[in-house]
Amino acid sequence: MLINCDMGESYGAWEMGQDKEIMPFVDMANIACGMHASDPSVMLRTVRYAKEHDVSIGAHPGFPDLQGFGRRFIEMPTEELKAYVIYQLGALNGICQSEGVSISYVKPHGALYNAMMKKDEIYIALLEVIASYDINLPLTIMAVPDHLHYSTLAEQYGVKLIFEAFVDRTYLSDGRLTSRTQPGACHDDLAVICTQAMKLISEQSVTSIDGQEVKIKADTLCIHGDGKLAADIAKTLRKSITEYTESMKCK
Amino acid sequence: MLINCDMGESYGAWEMGQDKEIMPFVDMANIACGMHASDPSVMLRTVRYAKEHDVSIGAHPGFPDLQGFGRRFIEMPTEELKAYVIYQLGALNGICQSEGVSISYVKPHGALYNAMMKKDEIYIALLEVIASYDINLPLTIMAVPDHLHYSTLAEQYGVKLIFEAFVDRTYLSDGRLTSRTQPGACHDDLAVICTQAMKLISEQSVTSIDGQEVKIKADTLCIHGDGKLAADIAKTLRKSITEYTESMKCK
Amino acid sequence: MLINCDMGESYGAWEMGQDKEIMPFVDMANIACGMHASDPSVMLRTVRYAKEHDVSIGAHPGFPDLQGFGRRFIEMPTEELKAYVIYQLGALNGICQSEGVSISYVKPHGALYNAMMKKDEIYIALLEVIASYDINLPLTIMAVPDHLHYSTLAEQYGVKLIFEAFVDRTYLSDGRLTSRTQPGACHDDLAVICTQAMKLISEQSVTSIDGQEVKIKADTLCIHGDGKLAADIAKTLRKSITEYTESMKCK
Amino acid sequence: MLINCDMGESYGAWEMGQDKEIMPFVDMANIACGMHASDPSVMLRTVRYAKEHDVSIGAHPGFPDLQGFGRRFIEMPTEELKAYVIYQLGALNGICQSEGVSISYVKPHGALYNAMMKKDEIYIALLEVIASYDINLPLTIMAVPDHLHYSTLAEQYGVKLIFEAFVDRTYLSDGRLTSRTQPGACHDDLAVICTQAMKLISEQSVTSIDGQEVKIKADTLCIHGDGKLAADIAKTLRKSITEYTESMKCK
Repeated sequence: MLINCDMGESYGAWEMGQDKEIMPFVDMANIACGMHASDPSVMLRTVRYAKEHDVSIGAHPGFPDLQGFGRRFIEMPTEELKAYVIYQLGALNGICQSEGVSISYVKPHGALYNAMMKKDEIYIALLEVIASYDINLPLTIMAVPDHLHYSTLAEQYGVKLIFEAFVDRTYLSDGRLTSRTQPGACHDDLAVICTQAMKLISEQSVTSIDGQEVKIKADTLCIHGDGKLAADIAKTLRKSITEYTESMKCK
Repeated sequence: MLINCDMGESYGAWEMGQDKEIMPFVDMANIACGMHASDPSVMLRTVRYAKEHDVSIGAHPGFPDLQGFGRRFIEMPTEELKAYVIYQLGALNGICQSEGVSISYVKPHGALYNAMMKKDEIYIALLEVIASYDINLPLTIMAVPDHLHYSTLAEQYGVKLIFEAFVDRTYLSDGRLTSRTQPGACHDDLAVICTQAMKLISEQSVTSIDGQEVKIKADTLCIHGDGKLAADIAKTLRKSITEYTESMKCK
Repeated sequence: MLINCDMGESYGAWEMGQDKEIMPFVDMANIACGMHASDPSVMLRTVRYAKEHDVSIGAHPGFPDLQGFGRRFIEMPTEELKAYVIYQLGALNGICQSEGVSISYVKPHGALYNAMMKKDEIYIALLEVIASYDINLPLTIMAVPDHLHYSTLAEQYGVKLIFEAFVDRTYLSDGRLTSRTQPGACHDDLAVICTQAMKLISEQSVTSIDGQEVKIKADTLCIHGDGKLAADIAKTLRKSITEYTESMKCK
Repeated sequence: MLINCDMGESYGAWEMGQDKEIMPFVDMANIACGMHASDPSVMLRTVRYAKEHDVSIGAHPGFPDLQGFGRRFIEMPTEELKAYVIYQLGALNGICQSEGVSISYVKPHGALYNAMMKKDEIYIALLEVIASYDINLPLTIMAVPDHLHYSTLAEQYGVKLIFEAFVDRTYLSDGRLTSRTQPGACHDDLAVICTQAMKLISEQSVTSIDGQEVKIKADTLCIHGDGKLAADIAKTLRKSITEYTESMKCK
């Protein structure tokens, strides 16, 4: 079970996230590409930092909307959206190339991520982007009970998927996240977060906010890079996963 | 002798240039990368158009300044400038990659081009960018009498150069262009433009604005994509070069 | 009957529209405020030009989206949208103030205009903006058969309305415009445009695309500043309105 | 002696500064206008907060360069620069107007402030901006030994000046600030900062970094809103000034 985290979300003079503290504990760094956050200098230092810690680099493209941090859905033709995403993959890969590394996967950001999970048209657009840009890049999407819908489509385009689950967010009984506009959307207790993580690892399931068991089969756990607990979550999760993996080996 | 032209300088709803009319007659398309002009959709359609006409694609990076069209010098640390340029090379190459082509050279735009020719610090920064990003990409710079200064530095970094001359601009006796702020900076007569072009081709020289002969050894001639004569210049120049090449073969 | 036209839609090096040719023939210039088009220099020269021709200046605010020219709907909280609009009113009024004039009305642009006519929440947000910024500024909206819905709401906020009709667009039988994505959305024949204009003036109605008579009571006719007919439309319309007004006086 | 502080420098999702903690202790809030920092929502909440604490609102315009936070000098024609500044004054005043307040002064930001103090052309451009926009707005500039140069020019344009001194920066013997690129440019000890402040208040002078006494006659002291000491500085300075004022009254 891998840990992924959004990274490189600073912009110019504005700092965001705790990349320095978190990078040593994650496996996958989702790096913003300059359209919803980040700029070329931030991207360069984030790529260098990921390389230093031998962390996989993922492109984290978003809507072209710095002021809205990529969280506002922008209506646009699919062809235009595809061009925006390809541009971002290329830009990050250019930075990587100059540092002798390359991107390993794609994970959309914010409103683009949400739209991908809700609208097949946008999900397919992203599959087409990968098919035309680099078929070897897996697409990271949300691990959901109806994952077959997504994997069937991905197979048609020859795109591999990575499924991710969330450790610091609560789930509804349909396997989707509680909206941030609702109370109780986020866990803020480290112990609760760890319990949810270990359950995702050992039982492939979560307990929903209304007490249901929901099957969630994930390849990676997403942690958020902001919030005052972020570094603690990263550290604790890394330790728990290592211990669990060791214990499995013993058996 | 190759013809190069700046292309893909539209932005969103704003059209600029005559790409459609000019592309069939040039060898090299300098394509803007989204920081001083262009956007992902414009880049995509320009790359497709270049591919259709079998025209070499060059990255045309500029200062991050849409409102100033990359014509305003922006003071910034060299490391920051390098990151901006790498970002742009990668972004255009991403678009190219999704279309099964790739960039063949780099030609800086506007204030960045001027700064490269005036300040060694910036010229060297660009050489370092290419050395780290892709050493096989030649850098297009201005053909000047003191070209040795530039080629010596380029050799130190292992970077190949392409020298370009201008057919629709007048030259000073030191081999630099008359500033656009001065009268007589541009030729606006097609016959004069052709004469300057043919002299650059057959005699490797230009007649400066004050009547001096100046040695200018160029690999490519730059034409500008705006102006009402642009398409005519492209067409006429292409015809002249073809005729000249044929006549050389006969000998 | 007044003529209004969108003006000042150039941006940096990119020119758009035929402000110079059209300004002499219109009564109201809807001037872009720098978020979907225009920049401070363009705004300044457009305000000066309007002042020179004694044309009323209207603020033409849009979504903050240069690349999409304000034609893409962006989801955002109403409070945020209101702040964007107030910012734009203030910015244009600042330019006006430095030239000794002031804005006389507000007309939203593109996706914001469309959203205003479709979603009461956004229409009300705009009424609130005017109520808090300057209650004396009328809001220009589309003249529709169900205008009472809009005027009732406007009265609640104490905001005056200006109703506009379109002379170069075709109407549906419900009094809304044929979508630009449909064939026949625009008139491209000057005679047809004039006929529609004169019918709007003398009979307060239009003939819809499917042959129905639709009551449209407008205070002003909108013409578009781009398109090759733009200046001709402005000129012809001005002449027709003047003649009609004269003929009315005779009676 | 008044205290001024840069405020409203957040942008979208990125927070900067400690406006909440500092506002209660200052007299003048220099509010960013959306070109180098801030956005309409940030401006609105900052204006409301200033109003709540009865703090004077100053427009804090900068170069149009979010990514560089207005700290990079951008070469442009003076007429263009003036339009940018007027736009920003208007935008902030629009926000103020909707809240029933107005701007009371102008203080340029970052590279624009530095350029104003170094190049008469830019200083004069700013005087002209105020003369055309609102002659009653004073311009805040740096209190320097050669203040007569600045006040003579300001008088020619009929513009009032506010002179400010810095309490957390060190001075050179010519009365200018030690560059941030040099060691010892900033004071980081609260006691030292207070000593410098009190000396500016009671003796109208500072001790330069090389031990010289330099006459600095200031109307206001500037504190910086970032840095971990920011709120402490504001609080302590307010207390010291109040005590000093009281003690003066007793005499």
